[in-house]
Amino acid sequence: MNSFGSIFRIHIFGESHGKTIGVLIDGCPPGIPLAPEDFSSDLLRRKAGASATTTRIEDDTPLIQSGSYNGFTTGAPLCIVFENNNVQSKDYESVKVQPRPGHADFVAAKKFNGFNDHRGGGHFSGRLTLALVAAGVVAKKIIPSVHINGMIEEAGGSKNIEEAVALAVENQDSIGGIVECKVSGLPVGLGEPFFNSVESLISHAAFAIPAIKGIEFGSGFSAVKMTGSTHNDSIVEASGKTATNFAGGINGGITNGNDLVFRVAVKPPSSTPKAQQTMNLESGRVEELKVKGRHDLCIALRVPVVLESIAAFVIADLMMIEQSRKLPA
Amino acid sequence: MNSFGSIFRIHIFGESHGKTIGVLIDGCPPGIPLAPEDFSSDLLRRKAGASATTTRIEDDTPLIQSGSYNGFTTGAPLCIVFENNNVQSKDYESVKVQPRPGHADFVAAKKFNGFNDHRGGGHFSGRLTLALVAAGVVAKKIIPSVHINGMIEEAGGSKNIEEAVALAVENQDSIGGIVECKVSGLPVGLGEPFFNSVESLISHAAFAIPAIKGIEFGSGFSAVKMTGSTHNDSIVEASGKTATNFAGGINGGITNGNDLVFRVAVKPPSSTPKAQQTMNLESGRVEELKVKGRHDLCIALRVPVVLESIAAFVIADLMMIEQSRKLPA
Amino acid sequence: MNSFGSIFRIHIFGESHGKTIGVLIDGCPPGIPLAPEDFSSDLLRRKAGASATTTRIEDDTPLIQSGSYNGFTTGAPLCIVFENNNVQSKDYESVKVQPRPGHADFVAAKKFNGFNDHRGGGHFSGRLTLALVAAGVVAKKIIPSVHINGMIEEAGGSKNIEEAVALAVENQDSIGGIVECKVSGLPVGLGEPFFNSVESLISHAAFAIPAIKGIEFGSGFSAVKMTGSTHNDSIVEASGKTATNFAGGINGGITNGNDLVFRVAVKPPSSTPKAQQTMNLESGRVEELKVKGRHDLCIALRVPVVLESIAAFVIADLMMIEQSRKLPA
Amino acid sequence: MNSFGSIFRIHIFGESHGKTIGVLIDGCPPGIPLAPEDFSSDLLRRKAGASATTTRIEDDTPLIQSGSYNGFTTGAPLCIVFENNNVQSKDYESVKVQPRPGHADFVAAKKFNGFNDHRGGGHFSGRLTLALVAAGVVAKKIIPSVHINGMIEEAGGSKNIEEAVALAVENQDSIGGIVECKVSGLPVGLGEPFFNSVESLISHAAFAIPAIKGIEFGSGFSAVKMTGSTHNDSIVEASGKTATNFAGGINGGITNGNDLVFRVAVKPPSSTPKAQQTMNLESGRVEELKVKGRHDLCIALRVPVVLESIAAFVIADLMMIEQSRKLPA
Repeated sequence: MNSFGSIFRIHIFGESHGKTIGVLIDGCPPGIPLAPEDFSSDLLRRKAGASATTTRIEDDTPLIQSGSYNGFTTGAPLCIVFENNNVQSKDYESVKVQPRPGHADFVAAKKFNGFNDHRGGGHFSGRLTLALVAAGVVAKKIIPSVHINGMIEEAGGSKNIEEAVALAVENQDSIGGIVECKVSGLPVGLGEPFFNSVESLISHAAFAIPAIKGIEFGSGFSAVKMTGSTHNDSIVEASGKTATNFAGGINGGITNGNDLVFRVAVKPPSSTPKAQQTMNLESGRVEELKVKGRHDLCIALRVPVVLESIAAFVIADLMMIEQSRKLPA
Repeated sequence: MNSFGSIFRIHIFGESHGKTIGVLIDGCPPGIPLAPEDFSSDLLRRKAGASATTTRIEDDTPLIQSGSYNGFTTGAPLCIVFENNNVQSKDYESVKVQPRPGHADFVAAKKFNGFNDHRGGGHFSGRLTLALVAAGVVAKKIIPSVHINGMIEEAGGSKNIEEAVALAVENQDSIGGIVECKVSGLPVGLGEPFFNSVESLISHAAFAIPAIKGIEFGSGFSAVKMTGSTHNDSIVEASGKTATNFAGGINGGITNGNDLVFRVAVKPPSSTPKAQQTMNLESGRVEELKVKGRHDLCIALRVPVVLESIAAFVIADLMMIEQSRKLPA
Repeated sequence: MNSFGSIFRIHIFGESHGKTIGVLIDGCPPGIPLAPEDFSSDLLRRKAGASATTTRIEDDTPLIQSGSYNGFTTGAPLCIVFENNNVQSKDYESVKVQPRPGHADFVAAKKFNGFNDHRGGGHFSGRLTLALVAAGVVAKKIIPSVHINGMIEEAGGSKNIEEAVALAVENQDSIGGIVECKVSGLPVGLGEPFFNSVESLISHAAFAIPAIKGIEFGSGFSAVKMTGSTHNDSIVEASGKTATNFAGGINGGITNGNDLVFRVAVKPPSSTPKAQQTMNLESGRVEELKVKGRHDLCIALRVPVVLESIAAFVIADLMMIEQSRKLPA
Repeated sequence: MNSFGSIFRIHIFGESHGKTIGVLIDGCPPGIPLAPEDFSSDLLRRKAGASATTTRIEDDTPLIQSGSYNGFTTGAPLCIVFENNNVQSKDYESVKVQPRPGHADFVAAKKFNGFNDHRGGGHFSGRLTLALVAAGVVAKKIIPSVHINGMIEEAGGSKNIEEAVALAVENQDSIGGIVECKVSGLPVGLGEPFFNSVESLISHAAFAIPAIKGIEFGSGFSAVKMTGSTHNDSIVEASGKTATNFAGGINGGITNGNDLVFRVAVKPPSSTPKAQQTMNLESGRVEELKVKGRHDLCIALRVPVVLESIAAFVIADLMMIEQSRKLPA
């Protein structure tokens, strides 16, 4: 059930060290101009996010397999794949015996009865965020009036990101961070009450990004210390513009025309270079583990563009759903 | 699209001042004992949560309309409704002219072109959490080995809930709170990587509860200041038990056999008794508003049982999905 | 999984001798005028279809429980129920011991481990077509430019329906029939290639009507004896109008602007008054059975309006999906 | 929305003259042995069906892109693609001006505003049945106790298939046919009443096969001339075995343990070599058209294995759904 969306639907597939990583996009309207180079900027932001801290270099060229013709989407399912070339699978033999703490090695082996592809985390790898970003690039193109901006707000507890990363490299220990996403240009009325609230859909998609531990909208967790009279945003224009934006642009699950604002907590990557104690399933003893492979020390650096991407495809889907109601009389 | 779930599916309907509030549950296995009195305890917890602070008293008797026979579920769709009797709609005439800040009045009128039932918030009302709790009661019965416990952790910024509520009543201003949910007895392996991660599904359902502004799993937002070597939970038993539980019971979107732990931030209810300034759509001026109707000062008090309920139906669905793979050879 | 549709979604529930039969409609646009009397004509056609041959008389008053306010749909889920009043459950005690041939008694007991409500066929009853017709009434209102016409074409092998029914009553044996549905006023372009072809969706919904044994579009089964040069419909106008309509208004799963035409085969009702031989599960012997209860001798008489209904909600959904692609640039 | 299934889910993509045709399978259990050669037999049956009458020769080697490791499915999404090599796109330039009768050229251009890939029918091509067959191969492996057998029953109105095809080649005009599928080894209880009836799901998937004009189960259209006392299948064993099988193995939408039997009507392929009269959209006149490209004269020959495939994935999904209810107490 690697699917998301109602009309603009995303399906992702692939493994870290398999042949390809890919995304199948269903429901994309025809006539959207689409060239491989349209993906470059966002794919580069995803990659560059990690440049200081990882050494796996992949080309990340999008190969459009279907759904595009003469430079435009056709309306048929759009399949985009990325090849895996820079693979070093030998680093991963040990994870079957000594599952890496914080990673999915243990649960994957249990859930899939040992048939999972364990190399580089297999299907659980953060490399699948490539597919999310590719979907986001397409989604952004179908909602040109909407502006989405993801930004890292803090890393390792500090607002000075560069220093925090330098310190992580120096300490050889991974760090977390907070990423904010702000969406402007939204109409009033996207989303549905209850199960398809904007928060429900954004959070559903956001937790598909590995390493996310929390999400909050507008005032978020700070709301718990506020009173209603302070927290309520007074409407000051007939358009719905409010004096404050503690709501984060959403009332009753529906966009209210103000900026949609949300933040995610990104944990420190599990693949820290530090030695760790954990179970060796063969020996039955807790033993020391040094994680091999090539990994980011601050995955939060890559998250802004991924968060933008999930926002883009959630909103594209919601706009299409809303449009579906506008049947001519 | 007021639906949630893959196999154990929930559909909710109704309005605050309409005839009924209800839930339609599809995919419930046959043979589950089900009597109206099974709902009493959880429905009472939902109601009692607000006893100090609201005056709308409803009977909340579950009327099982279908899917049950001779005291057991039949396997056919289960429809449960609750009548609305204690309705005072006249309190709400003004919301069409002066939408209440923080409420859905404004967005509902825009989204539905003024055809929404505005009385008591209509379909957006917190009264629909009755339907969520009813679904949770059924779900809990099909996962008897799982124990779910929701608890309010703090209100109005204080760990002393009673004092905080008393203060809110005294100040006549609404307050927020934090509610935690802990689930034990889960097997390893529920959930799917990416779009159907446990966090994705729990958060999707949790944001269907009105007034939730944030959610976090395990370490949550505190993870952002931790390092990987501290945050990683060492596996210390072959069962997957970990020394710490910063993961909140989930790795790679999949339950790891430790307690599933999550927390939500509940905002102060928008219907504070305090006077507020907001737009009058007729006069086109910002004017004072005093919200009428009967409302909770601390909706967080009602949230624990609702949070349990959404956890229950998410987990019931995930267990059924996992079971679906266990085809005899 | 008693659900159908992508945006305009239908969920049905209820049992023949339970409290109510109902339908929950999600995704209905707001502002559709809707009064209980709007249902009268189609509900009467469904009932009258059987007037010659059955004696269970129900009032069939639609009770709109939610999603409607001041005579218009609100955009929130629309729940419509019908009470069951004229119930004679004692007629059905024997079906647990001697399941009626052609009915679902046997499979229902097996599938649901004996917990199914067996009275009057329970959830399997043809009475649930009430819910389909109610959904059709709503759907027809949102596609006013589309005209849908269902007609019984033959009964008991004869084109003279009245005579055929009179003969069935005389013979005290049930008969089958063919029902055709013709839909005009459709735009070019509804439906999707492959899994969401118009034929796929119409047939999916049509086989939700009990007693349907086959469906064909346009030339249908007669196509198998034709050659391509005869079967192909020449396009004779730029609008797509064709000289013939062997395609039944569909090419590649997509409406082509000509009339959509399909026909269903309706079996003779299983509840024939004739004595039958079948298994007695208690004695383990094949024994004679006389089916009690009140039943139609020619269910095909009721099918035209039900077939119109399923066509209506399939098309309403497809029109909304198509509209979803028309995002303003 | 090129998706089908609830748990075992199929998504297809690709165009006749694009890079690849493919299928993405979600929800496949882990541990199913899967090698490229497992596809050979069914893919060959699909290809050989047309050997007498077409000249496009493709290699049809399945390239497993994801979801498989060390020869077994992993439980992650399984992506299988086939390259298009033997492409002659110049044959298709004219279809934009003079859409081929019976084909989707006209509707595709309208629906997708001219952005569709028209070459070889693009996404509408029968070549996508490759993807259906590939999905069927996987599905068959997860339901080893079920036996599915598709067979062509008649072609060109004759039971002698070879003669009929020879005659079609001689006449240079395409012919239709009837294909039957019989499924044995099914348990009692698959399927759901109403919208997820076995007939609903099988027919939904069957009409995803191009050129199908009708489908019938068991007695099918011949039921309309029968009486209830003749049509009813007497249960003669406690297992549910019936004396006759007019029901085609289904009661109330649920398998009854007898053979599931259904038949489809396949139209004569639209690409007959015969000259045809149809609209030239540029000249605005009806003109003669001779269809170029390489096509089958009797597509019904390829249908048996495709029909088996759709039966296989429908049943695999239904068995997984049924299994989902069998939660340990």
